[in-house]
Amino acid sequence: MWLSAMAMLWQVEPLNEGAGFLWLALGISVLALLTVFYFAQFVLRADTGTEQMRTISDAIREGAEAFLRRQYKTIGILSVVLAILIFIGYKVSPRNAPLATKTVIAFLIGAACSGLAGFTGMYVSIRANIRTASAARTSINNALRIALRGGAVTGLVVVALSLLGVGLLFFFFGGLATPREVPYQVVGFGFGASFVALFAQLGGGIYTKAADVGADLVGKVEAGIPEDDPRNPAVIADLVGDNVGDCAGRGADLFESTAAENVGAMILGAALYPHFGLKGILFPLVARAFGLIASTVGVLIVRTDEKEDPMQALNRGYYVTTVLAIAGFAVAVHYLLKDNWWFLGSGVVGILTAFLFVYITQYYTEYRFRPVSSIAKASLTGPATNIIAGLSVGLETPALPVIVIGAALMLSYWFGLKAFQGTTLSGISEYAKGIYGTAIATMGMLSTAAYILAMDTFGPITDNAGGIIEMSNQPEEIRVKTDRLDAVGNTTKALTKGYAIGSAALAAFLLFSAYLDEVKELVRGRLGAAASNFTFDTVNLANVPVFVAAMLGAMMVFLFSSLAIRAVGKAAQYIIEEVRRQFRENPGIMQGTSKPDYGSCVDIVTTAALKQMVLPGILAVGMPIAVGVVFRYFTGFHVSGGVPMIGGQPVNLVGAESVAALLMVGTITGILLATMMNNGGGAWDNAKKFIETGQYGGKRSDAHKAAVVGDTVGDPFKDTAGPSLHVLIKLLSTITLVMAPLFV
Amino acid sequence: MWLSAMAMLWQVEPLNEGAGFLWLALGISVLALLTVFYFAQFVLRADTGTEQMRTISDAIREGAEAFLRRQYKTIGILSVVLAILIFIGYKVSPRNAPLATKTVIAFLIGAACSGLAGFTGMYVSIRANIRTASAARTSINNALRIALRGGAVTGLVVVALSLLGVGLLFFFFGGLATPREVPYQVVGFGFGASFVALFAQLGGGIYTKAADVGADLVGKVEAGIPEDDPRNPAVIADLVGDNVGDCAGRGADLFESTAAENVGAMILGAALYPHFGLKGILFPLVARAFGLIASTVGVLIVRTDEKEDPMQALNRGYYVTTVLAIAGFAVAVHYLLKDNWWFLGSGVVGILTAFLFVYITQYYTEYRFRPVSSIAKASLTGPATNIIAGLSVGLETPALPVIVIGAALMLSYWFGLKAFQGTTLSGISEYAKGIYGTAIATMGMLSTAAYILAMDTFGPITDNAGGIIEMSNQPEEIRVKTDRLDAVGNTTKALTKGYAIGSAALAAFLLFSAYLDEVKELVRGRLGAAASNFTFDTVNLANVPVFVAAMLGAMMVFLFSSLAIRAVGKAAQYIIEEVRRQFRENPGIMQGTSKPDYGSCVDIVTTAALKQMVLPGILAVGMPIAVGVVFRYFTGFHVSGGVPMIGGQPVNLVGAESVAALLMVGTITGILLATMMNNGGGAWDNAKKFIETGQYGGKRSDAHKAAVVGDTVGDPFKDTAGPSLHVLIKLLSTITLVMAPLFV
Repeated sequence: MWLSAMAMLWQVEPLNEGAGFLWLALGISVLALLTVFYFAQFVLRADTGTEQMRTISDAIREGAEAFLRRQYKTIGILSVVLAILIFIGYKVSPRNAPLATKTVIAFLIGAACSGLAGFTGMYVSIRANIRTASAARTSINNALRIALRGGAVTGLVVVALSLLGVGLLFFFFGGLATPREVPYQVVGFGFGASFVALFAQLGGGIYTKAADVGADLVGKVEAGIPEDDPRNPAVIADLVGDNVGDCAGRGADLFESTAAENVGAMILGAALYPHFGLKGILFPLVARAFGLIASTVGVLIVRTDEKEDPMQALNRGYYVTTVLAIAGFAVAVHYLLKDNWWFLGSGVVGILTAFLFVYITQYYTEYRFRPVSSIAKASLTGPATNIIAGLSVGLETPALPVIVIGAALMLSYWFGLKAFQGTTLSGISEYAKGIYGTAIATMGMLSTAAYILAMDTFGPITDNAGGIIEMSNQPEEIRVKTDRLDAVGNTTKALTKGYAIGSAALAAFLLFSAYLDEVKELVRGRLGAAASNFTFDTVNLANVPVFVAAMLGAMMVFLFSSLAIRAVGKAAQYIIEEVRRQFRENPGIMQGTSKPDYGSCVDIVTTAALKQMVLPGILAVGMPIAVGVVFRYFTGFHVSGGVPMIGGQPVNLVGAESVAALLMVGTITGILLATMMNNGGGAWDNAKKFIETGQYGGKRSDAHKAAVVGDTVGDPFKDTAGPSLHVLIKLLSTITLVMAPLFV
Repeated sequence: MWLSAMAMLWQVEPLNEGAGFLWLALGISVLALLTVFYFAQFVLRADTGTEQMRTISDAIREGAEAFLRRQYKTIGILSVVLAILIFIGYKVSPRNAPLATKTVIAFLIGAACSGLAGFTGMYVSIRANIRTASAARTSINNALRIALRGGAVTGLVVVALSLLGVGLLFFFFGGLATPREVPYQVVGFGFGASFVALFAQLGGGIYTKAADVGADLVGKVEAGIPEDDPRNPAVIADLVGDNVGDCAGRGADLFESTAAENVGAMILGAALYPHFGLKGILFPLVARAFGLIASTVGVLIVRTDEKEDPMQALNRGYYVTTVLAIAGFAVAVHYLLKDNWWFLGSGVVGILTAFLFVYITQYYTEYRFRPVSSIAKASLTGPATNIIAGLSVGLETPALPVIVIGAALMLSYWFGLKAFQGTTLSGISEYAKGIYGTAIATMGMLSTAAYILAMDTFGPITDNAGGIIEMSNQPEEIRVKTDRLDAVGNTTKALTKGYAIGSAALAAFLLFSAYLDEVKELVRGRLGAAASNFTFDTVNLANVPVFVAAMLGAMMVFLFSSLAIRAVGKAAQYIIEEVRRQFRENPGIMQGTSKPDYGSCVDIVTTAALKQMVLPGILAVGMPIAVGVVFRYFTGFHVSGGVPMIGGQPVNLVGAESVAALLMVGTITGILLATMMNNGGGAWDNAKKFIETGQYGGKRSDAHKAAVVGDTVGDPFKDTAGPSLHVLIKLLSTITLVMAPLFV
């Protein structure tokens, strides 16, 4: 199948104008979707184990599907409301009105594609868990392959749908005829994707941790029964949570990353149109398509045997994917970017950044290293010192990632400048050249996204498989096998979070630039010839309103985290009360004579999570719009004497500039806080696991109790607030892109 | 005495050129120092109680003085090393060489004045504690007045010495002859003050919390003896810690605020020289001097009776101080700023900001309100939920302060613009006018600093008095009295932290502007006539190196907090081991038959705190310098084609601009994190106290145990990392001011 794609590649060469590359990218994404069907069939054909296993798996599946249905309904309603508001917002001003329909269509299609990707991935994941469990009874290789290919469904469908969506919108909006304008009209797609991602990640994150904390506090602490014990009424809700949080949530997160990056990079490519023509605009799509091929091959080659560490097998796949991604990049640079190898350099910088993030995350979250072992040691003097040590580690963790991102930005920018050295191009600023280099680094980083996402979704599938084995009373040696897979899944989940925040950080700069470009185009479009040389490339923190907006951006990130964490606490309260009620009213549950009502717990946490996700969601969407719309009236502060004149006409830019500052400083703060929470939470978790291996007194020691406190504190950090911040960062970028016309 | 000052005021009017106002400000600061002697005498004349009380008090005094001596010795060595480095750094470049001597002298005098202020305040505080304790045996009014006047010594000496130092340097550097240049030469004074403040606050903060955590963990938790029990070998170290952390540390913090603000506002005044002449430059000094008078009167009128809540009495003094400060401001505006009442508006904005910060802090830290009570309630489900609730509250707390600061900045900027409306002034930018408005708001906010600081130092004095009463086995009714004073002291300590961070935030913008102004002057000075119209007022986050520096600034704040918190943990370990050793080797201690060795604990924590303060200190000082010096070579990234040309000559500004971004975004992040830590820590503390009043099971319940965990976690937040961040923010400002010549 892929051979035919390669053959196409060589054939399109004659279509030198570039349009053929659009069809190539779309063709590859369709092939990727066919591969998804193949993987899904591979999973669904597998054996589903015993009757008892199926009962548990069915309960998880029903809970997850019920949550997803209700969540999508809520998100659907919110999306339609927002679509109407966007439409009205655009229609109010005569100069924005022509864009209203296209923006709203793009927004709704982006939202729908994200939902579809999430639903498909989930559909297969919650069916892969039992098949993984069943396969683990005979062959760890089969179990591994079922889990990874189940995860690959999410990975491929996410990347392929975002590519297909952007590509088709570009085509139908007339991108082949007016390639320099259409990328701006596609921004709604990215915003739709972020909007769905925000709620998917928030709702899923609140769900998973409320169920987890609730199940643990009543089950483990109050009733003294082990984790995943079938007597705990909240146990199914807990297993459902792994799917809706880690699987559907992270899928939406990376759907959003690839969608926003596609759109942002096309906008930057449009700025270089005089040099590359259509090809510079299509490059992101082609590079992404090659990444899909690389990831598919990576997934296909993964196999292991009974003895090998399964992580080794997954890593082999990752290395193959990386090498193929670099090769694909080189081919794309050859055909689309005039053989300019500096751009390949930028791409390699991005791929290396992904690698470094993976290693840094390991350093901070694996117990072989100083950070986690220092937390474990601090547990000896009780929960307070465990928390202090964990917070100290958490606050330390952003340091290296920030240095890596800073170096990657500067290096890829420099490669971008180098790429154009010697070519004189009128109308293209030095800035646009350098930024295109950073855009290509982001493409490099995201070229392995489908594989990374497959590894990530592997996590909840094996976690659930372990739960099913545990609850269906399988023999000890099978548990050992699923535990091995589950441990690998924990690692891949942590790595993906590092990767997701890293790619969000790198993509952020590209999206800032796309926003600045869009404002420039808006002003040029309004003023016509009078402003044909107008540029907008300054976000001046020394201006009072801009500085104040920057403070508000940073503050918003803190407040959002506070609301997300509080939401978990509130939703957990409902679960705790329900579990206590069931234990009280039905004593047979604890004696094992009667079955707890799993459904009511699932139902309660579903309602609570959906309710609690609304307030932080409104803050995230409302605040950048409010600042942009209100601050545009503070021009008097900006430059006294009122609105500046451009080409003889007044143009008010303080709102647009303030929003940019909110976006940039909000992003910086978000990256730091998310890194702190993801890694801090992971470190607490593994400090507990380290003690459970027998260190410092082992299980049931006082040190272990202290470490359990740290682990519980880390849960909403690493699985609710942290991942939601990734999405918040990208939402800020896409919302400002879409709403830019309202700020000028 | 003050009457003669008032008389002087009216007489200087004929000296209309303004020089007389310098003498007025200096005269008032000398009078304030005389008042310090009067207050010190008032305290020292008081009765020192029983022999047993004196024994305890002597131990605290010796411990505190020993720590201060060794701390100042360490800081002195570091200061001399840094002075030599500054001297060499300036001398290397021929264009900076002429400023080397003046900068180093100003730096050393600033450092020395800060040390002297800290020493004087501490000298009286550690003698006021026993006298307050003794007075509490007869009259709460006497006890209150001794404690407040003891605190006022710190308050007045801090503000007066910073005024005197800046004023005298201005005079001796020839400010009356060349008033537009000299303010830039005084910046070293502010940097010296910040440098000492950083280490005083860090060292003191580490000391106080290491002793506190150590004493609690072994005493309360392991040995089961109450707080302040004389059998605990670490109890004296704990009481010493209150003095060196809260009293000496916060004194240095606010010394730095007033010094930096004096210098920064004079620089901005220099920009307005064409309009106000010398008077605009001297206004900050005169306004500060009037604030000294207002604070002294406020302290003098405070008295209470046996029934009244002592907080009422302190608040009365604060209201009187505030009203007098506004009146003094009006007089200063009348004589120095041409009766331009818009400036009074700016001043009032600052004073109102101080008020709002005080109220917001109360909302987040008093148990009457939702935040603290939610933490107390969460303690019912254990330490994990207590911590989650506390972190959620902590992350929420920056929201309102950021909005208040944002509004204050915008409003005072607007008043600044209004003040100049209609006047056409050549060579003065709109920006300089608006910023002068924000500078005046900062002066307003700091005009009550001496009184606030007196209230703050009241805290450790009454805390120590309570400890002395407790340890010397006084009757219950006297304990009740000192407990009342101690509770008031806890409130005033929390309020001062809110005030200190608020004033740091407001002052920050003024210091940014002073930095931009200084870079402008440096460039103009180098290029002469070619650049006479050059301005430097852009810190463009859209430039890659500037954005990367901004990320590094934010990262640095996180890393610094991490190091500060970890330092407490490490130092506490030493104490824990020492106390355990004493209990083990001398069983008579626990039986009450033999006296523990308090001195060795004091000694160990002194050594540990001084050692642990070095690493975060080096980070704070080294990173902005490193970024400035390294990033100036990244000009190629900034604008390709190399260094921009100004007036026909190449001028490299990317280093200076990057440092500005590091400074601004570091400041924003620092304000947020400090607010989170100060208020979060205070909320945890009071949630515990709330439970101790009998809520949720009261003392010794499980909820109480959970709340103790939260309180312990909050300790290094609110007393080490949080307050150190205040100083870090200001150090960033002054270090960039002093080092600016190296970045251009």
